[in-house]
Amino acid sequence: MSDQIPTEIAAEVERQHALIMRGTAYGDEGTRRVMDRELRQRLTESLMEKRPLRVYLGVDPTSPDLHIGHCVTLRKLALFQQLGHQSILLIGDFTGLVGDPSDKDSLRPMQAAEILNRNAATYREQAYKLLDPERTEVRRNSEWLGEMSFGDVVHLASNFTVQQFTGRDTFKNRIDGGQPVYVHEFMYGLMQGYDAVALKADIQLGGTDQTFNIMCGRTLQERQEQHAQIAVLTPILVGTDGKQRMSKSTGNYIGIDEPANSQYGKAMSIPDDVIVRFFDYGTNLADDEVDQIEAGLKSGALKPMDAKRHLARAIVSEWHGEEEAIAAEERWTRTFSQRSVPEDIPEAAIDFAGADQLEVSLPIFLHEIGAAASRAEAKRLVTQGAVRIDDEVVKEQAVEIRSGAVLRVGRRKWYRIVAS
Amino acid sequence: MSDQIPTEIAAEVERQHALIMRGTAYGDEGTRRVMDRELRQRLTESLMEKRPLRVYLGVDPTSPDLHIGHCVTLRKLALFQQLGHQSILLIGDFTGLVGDPSDKDSLRPMQAAEILNRNAATYREQAYKLLDPERTEVRRNSEWLGEMSFGDVVHLASNFTVQQFTGRDTFKNRIDGGQPVYVHEFMYGLMQGYDAVALKADIQLGGTDQTFNIMCGRTLQERQEQHAQIAVLTPILVGTDGKQRMSKSTGNYIGIDEPANSQYGKAMSIPDDVIVRFFDYGTNLADDEVDQIEAGLKSGALKPMDAKRHLARAIVSEWHGEEEAIAAEERWTRTFSQRSVPEDIPEAAIDFAGADQLEVSLPIFLHEIGAAASRAEAKRLVTQGAVRIDDEVVKEQAVEIRSGAVLRVGRRKWYRIVAS
Repeated sequence: MSDQIPTEIAAEVERQHALIMRGTAYGDEGTRRVMDRELRQRLTESLMEKRPLRVYLGVDPTSPDLHIGHCVTLRKLALFQQLGHQSILLIGDFTGLVGDPSDKDSLRPMQAAEILNRNAATYREQAYKLLDPERTEVRRNSEWLGEMSFGDVVHLASNFTVQQFTGRDTFKNRIDGGQPVYVHEFMYGLMQGYDAVALKADIQLGGTDQTFNIMCGRTLQERQEQHAQIAVLTPILVGTDGKQRMSKSTGNYIGIDEPANSQYGKAMSIPDDVIVRFFDYGTNLADDEVDQIEAGLKSGALKPMDAKRHLARAIVSEWHGEEEAIAAEERWTRTFSQRSVPEDIPEAAIDFAGADQLEVSLPIFLHEIGAAASRAEAKRLVTQGAVRIDDEVVKEQAVEIRSGAVLRVGRRKWYRIVAS
Repeated sequence: MSDQIPTEIAAEVERQHALIMRGTAYGDEGTRRVMDRELRQRLTESLMEKRPLRVYLGVDPTSPDLHIGHCVTLRKLALFQQLGHQSILLIGDFTGLVGDPSDKDSLRPMQAAEILNRNAATYREQAYKLLDPERTEVRRNSEWLGEMSFGDVVHLASNFTVQQFTGRDTFKNRIDGGQPVYVHEFMYGLMQGYDAVALKADIQLGGTDQTFNIMCGRTLQERQEQHAQIAVLTPILVGTDGKQRMSKSTGNYIGIDEPANSQYGKAMSIPDDVIVRFFDYGTNLADDEVDQIEAGLKSGALKPMDAKRHLARAIVSEWHGEEEAIAAEERWTRTFSQRSVPEDIPEAAIDFAGADQLEVSLPIFLHEIGAAASRAEAKRLVTQGAVRIDDEVVKEQAVEIRSGAVLRVGRRKWYRIVAS
């Protein structure tokens, strides 16, 4: 077939293929090789037939705040748009509407629907910071899953064996550990798989943890005599702790709607060994810029602290613009560098319960972290103006505190607030 | 509470309890004890409140021919009716309407619905030979299962763990043996479980193989704050081969609509060691009559052949009346006893593929079972009138042959036709 493909199309296939596959990650080499080959074929068909590919990303509207970890796949979705394909943002509202059956106190369906609508709108607005709203097809899977009967579910389920599910790490580990796995948990894979059929998707984007669900989609599409979608998988971005995946519940995230100072401070707090990964997947810097930074860090020509400033500025610039990035940097420098914040200050852990901010009673908190011998002493220190948060004197007893903030008590005691 | 129960009610509870529990069978003693206790309580409530119990039996209308194995539970359902309770015959049409998703050539839903309607009617008519039509509530589970959405199914499934299902023998054996179990197979248990909720059942009848499904119903009823139904379980009747369970697909069954001669011949063909079980579960004889027969067989006062005559006559009498039973017995005696059919004649196995009758080419068949040295010789034997089936000379080359028939070739060669 290749001898019939005009040179300019072959070249364009190669160009698009290289951009799409850049920075992808697959659990195993076999899957990567198959997906790579199918992608090249599908791109060729698309360009020969002048038919844009249908590319979708499914998102969970139950937690509407986007962080830069979400943006790894969203950037890919935007890329397809830039390459002239049809990008689809799929709001996975059906799962939410169905509710979590294990939660006895879950909201009634009507209320849930309102919240989901609001969340979906919030999510969409944030996603539009990367996507072109005019060219994005926004869909909800309640459109088709809400129409399905018990009989349809039986037919859907008949395409998969129990062993395929129990063999998945996520279930296998729980079963081996004697933990219950509920039957309805299998159905979420079926739902996601059917989304691909309903959307007639050519490509599904997702983190590497979505491999199984995307493969469910391929199976169902083949049963329906559709072309099986191609999985374009991206790595899961690590959180600001450098250890766990970035997520709201862990509190180790940088939200795209967070204030500039907060984003800047969080970016500065990451461990040195994940700096390059944050550049790769948390910013929109070009490859060669990141290559230079990586080389600089390796040779020692670039100090980690300077690389992080660059990173923090890049992140804030993307979401708040250059001006705010510069202001955040100046404020950070004023707080830390010029006032000589020691580089390795101790951390004071606090349970944010997944929130960004938390109101605390300062005397209790200072005493608990050992910054004052008693609550009474802590109270005095506050009243005397000896307590600063992010370089600002705090005289109130109850304050809003955020993860990443720097607390200074007296002249010598420094603490970085972190989520426990 | 027991001191408030009038004596006559307590006595009636005991009477009903004894009749209901007679001949039941439970996989484990713990289950039997719980069910026994709950049954006594529920009967007491029913009689105190003058509220008949809702008792149901679910039947599969995909195979409409009832055999005496089906009647073990149907007799119990009829008993409840005689005791003044509300008996419900549940036609499990939803499974049939959904179709067997693993069967690619399955009929289209509309056709299936027609067939199921016809089957359900046939089934009902046969069941009315034991049940009082006026007092039987006939329901179909498509009434409620057909209304359920994907979301409802998710909620239903959330009440069970995967481990509960994979721990069932039927699934465990297949999983251990490396055989696939399909996800939709789990859903049949959910459907059956939900039937109990929809029917607000007090009691569900079933063979011991239905234990798990009935317990699913209990679980779901408790979640819906209904009283959990009580399982009244009966043994599975063995087939005429004395080995496998009676079923149409194995061909080892006695159908209640089968001709009298066929029923009689099949009953006479059972192995001696299952005679008492056939009396217990395959006839409507009273307990003391069966006790006498059992004692007679043990002491040797009653010959197995005579016990089987009694059995065969009882079965034919129940389904065709006394007169036909006598006629069938006379015919059988003419064929076997008076013409001195040897008692232990060899069996000639033939694959009926689940059917009652099969057209065979007699010369080929006679040669295959070794009754003739060649097909040519077999043809000659047929032409000469040396071949008899059930004591009638057969001169056609192609004949309908039935399981249980006696074939005689020449003077000395006898064969009993059995399903392979």
